[in-house]
Amino acid sequence: MLVTVTDFGSQGPYLAQMKAAAMAHAPNVPMLDLLTDAPAFNPRATAHVLSAYIADFPQDSVVLGVVDPGVGSERAGIVVRAGGRWFVGPDNGLFAIAASHAGAAAAWHIAWTPRRLSATFHGRDVFAPVAALLAVGERPLGAPCDPADLVGAEWPADLAEIVYVDTYGNCMTGVRAATLPDGAQLRVAGRTPVRARTFSDVPEGEPLWYENANGLVEIAVNAGRADAGLGIGVGTAVEIAR
Amino acid sequence: MLVTVTDFGSQGPYLAQMKAAAMAHAPNVPMLDLLTDAPAFNPRATAHVLSAYIADFPQDSVVLGVVDPGVGSERAGIVVRAGGRWFVGPDNGLFAIAASHAGAAAAWHIAWTPRRLSATFHGRDVFAPVAALLAVGERPLGAPCDPADLVGAEWPADLAEIVYVDTYGNCMTGVRAATLPDGAQLRVAGRTPVRARTFSDVPEGEPLWYENANGLVEIAVNAGRADAGLGIGVGTAVEIAR
Amino acid sequence: MLVTVTDFGSQGPYLAQMKAAAMAHAPNVPMLDLLTDAPAFNPRATAHVLSAYIADFPQDSVVLGVVDPGVGSERAGIVVRAGGRWFVGPDNGLFAIAASHAGAAAAWHIAWTPRRLSATFHGRDVFAPVAALLAVGERPLGAPCDPADLVGAEWPADLAEIVYVDTYGNCMTGVRAATLPDGAQLRVAGRTPVRARTFSDVPEGEPLWYENANGLVEIAVNAGRADAGLGIGVGTAVEIAR
Repeated sequence: MLVTVTDFGSQGPYLAQMKAAAMAHAPNVPMLDLLTDAPAFNPRATAHVLSAYIADFPQDSVVLGVVDPGVGSERAGIVVRAGGRWFVGPDNGLFAIAASHAGAAAAWHIAWTPRRLSATFHGRDVFAPVAALLAVGERPLGAPCDPADLVGAEWPADLAEIVYVDTYGNCMTGVRAATLPDGAQLRVAGRTPVRARTFSDVPEGEPLWYENANGLVEIAVNAGRADAGLGIGVGTAVEIAR
Repeated sequence: MLVTVTDFGSQGPYLAQMKAAAMAHAPNVPMLDLLTDAPAFNPRATAHVLSAYIADFPQDSVVLGVVDPGVGSERAGIVVRAGGRWFVGPDNGLFAIAASHAGAAAAWHIAWTPRRLSATFHGRDVFAPVAALLAVGERPLGAPCDPADLVGAEWPADLAEIVYVDTYGNCMTGVRAATLPDGAQLRVAGRTPVRARTFSDVPEGEPLWYENANGLVEIAVNAGRADAGLGIGVGTAVEIAR
Repeated sequence: MLVTVTDFGSQGPYLAQMKAAAMAHAPNVPMLDLLTDAPAFNPRATAHVLSAYIADFPQDSVVLGVVDPGVGSERAGIVVRAGGRWFVGPDNGLFAIAASHAGAAAAWHIAWTPRRLSATFHGRDVFAPVAALLAVGERPLGAPCDPADLVGAEWPADLAEIVYVDTYGNCMTGVRAATLPDGAQLRVAGRTPVRARTFSDVPEGEPLWYENANGLVEIAVNAGRADAGLGIGVGTAVEIAR
C-alpha cells in the first residue's frame, strides 16, 4: 500500500499528479491519503503525527511524504526503512520520529533518474515514482547513509507541543501518553485540563486531555473546539508535570 | 461497494485510518466517500441526506456511517438492512430515515470483537471492519433488534429544515419534493422563493426552490449563494404551505 | 484512466455520485481527481489549468469535466478528442484550450440516452456514464461537430490573468512560460517580481515568478502567500513585457 502524507490540501492538482506518476510504475497498488493537511512547512510537527498514525497501515506500506519547503534547494531525497515500512521523501526530518520510535532504521539516498525533473515538484518527479517502485518490490536505492546523519536524528522522541489540530479542533501533541506516569498533569495556555478517557467524561464546554486512538496526548473540549476555545494551535507549548 | 458518510472533513487522518481497517478485511472492495462533511454532531440532519443520496449507489452497498458525538459513551453499534443496502455505525438515528423510507428494515447489534478498542475511534476499531466483512459476504451480526427500538425510529419521514449546505451554498431540506402537491409554497427566513426547474429559470441573484437531483426540496440563489444571501444554514426551519 | 475536473469541492456528495455512475459502466477503471476546486463558474480559467495539467495523465485518459454554471439551460454536452485524450462535459469552453494547444481536435455531440435525466446534475446523469463508456472502449458519440464551432474556439491560446490559486497561495497564470523570451518581465498588482527558478532563489517574503512544474507562468512569495501578500486572485490581470 502506498500512503501519502502531504501539506497539499485536499483540493488542488498536486496529489492527483503524484498518484498518476506512481501509477505509471505501480498501476495496481492501493493508495490512501493519510494526511493532506500536514502542518504546512513544518516537517517536525508532521513527523510526530506520521510516526503515531502509520501504525494503522500494513507492514511494507510505503509512505510518500511531501512536506517540502526546501524543494529546489540542495536538500537530498531519501528512502528510510523503519518499523517494517518504507518512507520516501525529502531529508528534512519528516521521517526522523518514525525512525527513532522504531529503534533500528536504515536509510539510503535515492538512486533513480527521473524522465524529467522540475525545479518545484520533486514529489511528482522523483518521490512518487520511487515510492511506487518500492511498493512493487524494486529497490531504486543508492548509497546507504547513516540514519544518525539525517536531518532530525537528534530530535527528542517526544515533543511537548501541539503538532496537529484535527477537523473538530482537537489538538494532538507530540507526546506519547504511554511515556507518562499515571498522575501526570498537563498545562496549556494557562489552563489545566483534567485527564479523561473520552469526551463525555467531562461537562460540555470543559477541556480535557486523554490518550488518543493512536497513543498521543490530545487536548479537546467536550462538544466544543479546543483550538478556538483555548486559543491554541500547532506550535503551542504544553507543560507536563510527571 | 463500501460507502463512507462521516463528519471527518476531507483532510485529516481519520478517513484513511478507517479505510485501512476496512481493507484489512476486504482488500478489493471499491470505496467511495459520499459525505466527509456531514453536518457535525448532527446525526438527524445527516440521516435525511443519507436516505436521499444512497439511491445512487448499487444494491448491496455497505454504508459506513460515522457521525458519532457519543463515541465512548454507552451508545450501541448497530447494523441496519434497508432498501437492499447495509448500514453500519452508531445507534444515534443516522440510519433512521433510510430505514423509514425503505419501509421494511431489519437491525442487529454488532457481534464482532475488535483486536483493540480505543475509547474515541469506534469507526476504525469496530464499524470499518464490520462494514468490510459485510461487503465480502460475512455476517458479523449479533442479536436482532427491533428497528422500532432504535434511536430516531419515531422521527417523521420528512424534516422541514435545512439539513445540508453544499459547496455552492445551495441549501437542501429534509423534505422530499414528491410528497408536495403542485401548488406548494415555501417560505424561509422571511422570503418566499419561487418554485423553478433549474437555476437559470430565475434572474441572477434571485432565490428559487426546486426538486434537487436526489428528490429533496432545495433552496438556491441563481449565480449566488443561498446560505449567505438568505442568512440560512443547517437547522433553519422551512415552512411549506401545501 | 478517468480524470475528474470539477468545482464541487472535496467534501460534498456530488463527486461520489458521479463516480458511482461511472463505475456502473466501468467498474475497474482507475479514477483520479485532478481538480475539485476548479475556479467556480469559470470554465475559461479552468480550461487553461486543465490543458497544462492533463499532460501528467496517460494517453487515452478520459477527462470528466464538470464546471457547469449553465446546467439545465440549453448548452450542449460534448465529447472532444485532443492530444490523445478524451474530454467529456458541457460545451462552455472548458476543453477549448486543451483542444487549441493540441492542434488538431475532433468533437462530437453526445449520443447517449440516460436512464434518467435530472434538471441540475448532468455530470452524474450523462457525462459520467459517457466518460466511463469511453474509458472501456465504447464510443457513445453522436454527430461530429466542427471544433471551430465550440464555445471558446476563438479564445487565445494564452491568457494573461491569474487562472488558479493553489493551496499555498501560489498564483498560476494562463500563460505558458515557453512562449516568453528570456528577458520577459512580469508586472502584477503594481509589483514587478523577479524571475527565478524556485522559491528559495529570492529572500523570504519576496515575490517571484517562474515556470511552474507544468509549464505555466506562476507567481509566488517565498515562504509566504502570493494571493494575500500581493492582493491578487483568479481574474487578476498580469502584464508581460516581452
